[in-house]
Amino acid sequence: MNNHATTGTSSDHRPKLSNEGLPPTHSVDAVDEYGLSRTLRVAGEFPLTIQVDGAEIVTLMSLGTFPEKLTLGYLRNQRLINDIGEIAEVRVDWEREIADVQTTHGNGIVNLKKETSNSLDPPHEVLLPQVKIKQSQVYALLENIAGYNQIYREAGAVHGCALCKGLEILYFIEDIGRHNATDAIAGEMWLENINGDDKWLYTTGRLTSEIVLKVASMGIPVLLSRSGITSMGLELAEHLGVTLIARAKGHHFLVYSGKDNLIYDEIPKRRRETDTINS
Amino acid sequence: MNNHATTGTSSDHRPKLSNEGLPPTHSVDAVDEYGLSRTLRVAGEFPLTIQVDGAEIVTLMSLGTFPEKLTLGYLRNQRLINDIGEIAEVRVDWEREIADVQTTHGNGIVNLKKETSNSLDPPHEVLLPQVKIKQSQVYALLENIAGYNQIYREAGAVHGCALCKGLEILYFIEDIGRHNATDAIAGEMWLENINGDDKWLYTTGRLTSEIVLKVASMGIPVLLSRSGITSMGLELAEHLGVTLIARAKGHHFLVYSGKDNLIYDEIPKRRRETDTINS
Repeated sequence: MNNHATTGTSSDHRPKLSNEGLPPTHSVDAVDEYGLSRTLRVAGEFPLTIQVDGAEIVTLMSLGTFPEKLTLGYLRNQRLINDIGEIAEVRVDWEREIADVQTTHGNGIVNLKKETSNSLDPPHEVLLPQVKIKQSQVYALLENIAGYNQIYREAGAVHGCALCKGLEILYFIEDIGRHNATDAIAGEMWLENINGDDKWLYTTGRLTSEIVLKVASMGIPVLLSRSGITSMGLELAEHLGVTLIARAKGHHFLVYSGKDNLIYDEIPKRRRETDTINS
Repeated sequence: MNNHATTGTSSDHRPKLSNEGLPPTHSVDAVDEYGLSRTLRVAGEFPLTIQVDGAEIVTLMSLGTFPEKLTLGYLRNQRLINDIGEIAEVRVDWEREIADVQTTHGNGIVNLKKETSNSLDPPHEVLLPQVKIKQSQVYALLENIAGYNQIYREAGAVHGCALCKGLEILYFIEDIGRHNATDAIAGEMWLENINGDDKWLYTTGRLTSEIVLKVASMGIPVLLSRSGITSMGLELAEHLGVTLIARAKGHHFLVYSGKDNLIYDEIPKRRRETDTINS
């Protein structure tokens, strides 16, 4: 992965991290419709309980490839810890299935109310930049992304998320939970002090309320998905100023929110006769 | 929907239920890759906070079509309430976004510890019957199911779950959360006193640990999915005796757990040359 440091505002503090990423897929035997034995790969799934100063916060089911970044991103996107300077260490121990977070102050989550309060409340501090989006850039990114979903192609059962800048894929993370993949990217951004202003987030998953909220709290103004949207995902995107592009695949896409931000500089030559969904 | 009462063991008590199902899809405007406006349907997404005797348990994001059954099934599958006789009423109020559950005793969740303890602990009381599965039955069911996913075909962004008996689809429920769709079916089964012994559960979603646990706690011995599996879904299925059939689509399927239960009575004539995943 590349590190793209930007002019962020946080301190230079960097928490100490373990390096306990697991291999993503595992070999198993199955029998197919011909009664033939086949050795196949399946995606890993492991419980990881996040503890902060010894207090249990949540158990996530994850592929386990980036557990430290997932832990950081979860704490950040749930607004449980607002300053990475508060985090001294994240130590993952798969034997105990625990991500042990130590804060610098040792007081745990200071405002635990936030965890139990409705995490669907929009992050009020969000102020996303208005950006223009070239159709040609959407197409170029979709082409680039096609080469990244290795785990899906090997084992299926995962969703992928990409942090994009211009035509470049900065990070691509897959996980069995699409929320986890987004959180792991948030952890990466937090750690490397990357702001979201000039980034897009691509996901293979659906654009539900939770993904829109995560992306807004990551400061990313553009959300691109291969899948569809929900009514609340759309409402929140309009409210928070996130440009929402769904069903993005090949040359097809649908802009649901931020329609005026699109620049149609590469309109396909022929109109296709049929679309499988929403035609 | 049909009610298929069976020789269950529960009491005849039936909680009072509101009837607050929402329409599943909503009309919105989008702009396509040609810059053309299109009016499309999107799946609804609404928060529903389950309260038991006034105490908040969880907030689920749901399509909202069967909120009372979802509430019942959630309480049952999380093992928060074990006897439907304890539930006097489920009253859904979308204005307040609350499913208000009143117990007969008024004491709320008696064993609240269960909620916070790891819900991934296998339900120890599970004893699933060993059943034989005809390949011809798999194919017939897949054909029948194809006609049911109306919401998906209209708006995408949902998963479907079917409770099947023989060649019949007893219930088909779609929701933006595949967990919700399974829970709503569990609620239906609880309410109608339907046991799982001679049923299969079909889902369009992936077979992760949580779905396998839900199906086991519903007493259903066969789980069939259009999608893939995870390592922990497989481990739990083997441990609990759930037959796991994944990638079931057309004439293709893969049996991952309970391989000896399959009866190959309709082996396809030609072996296909390629499979897109796991070939």
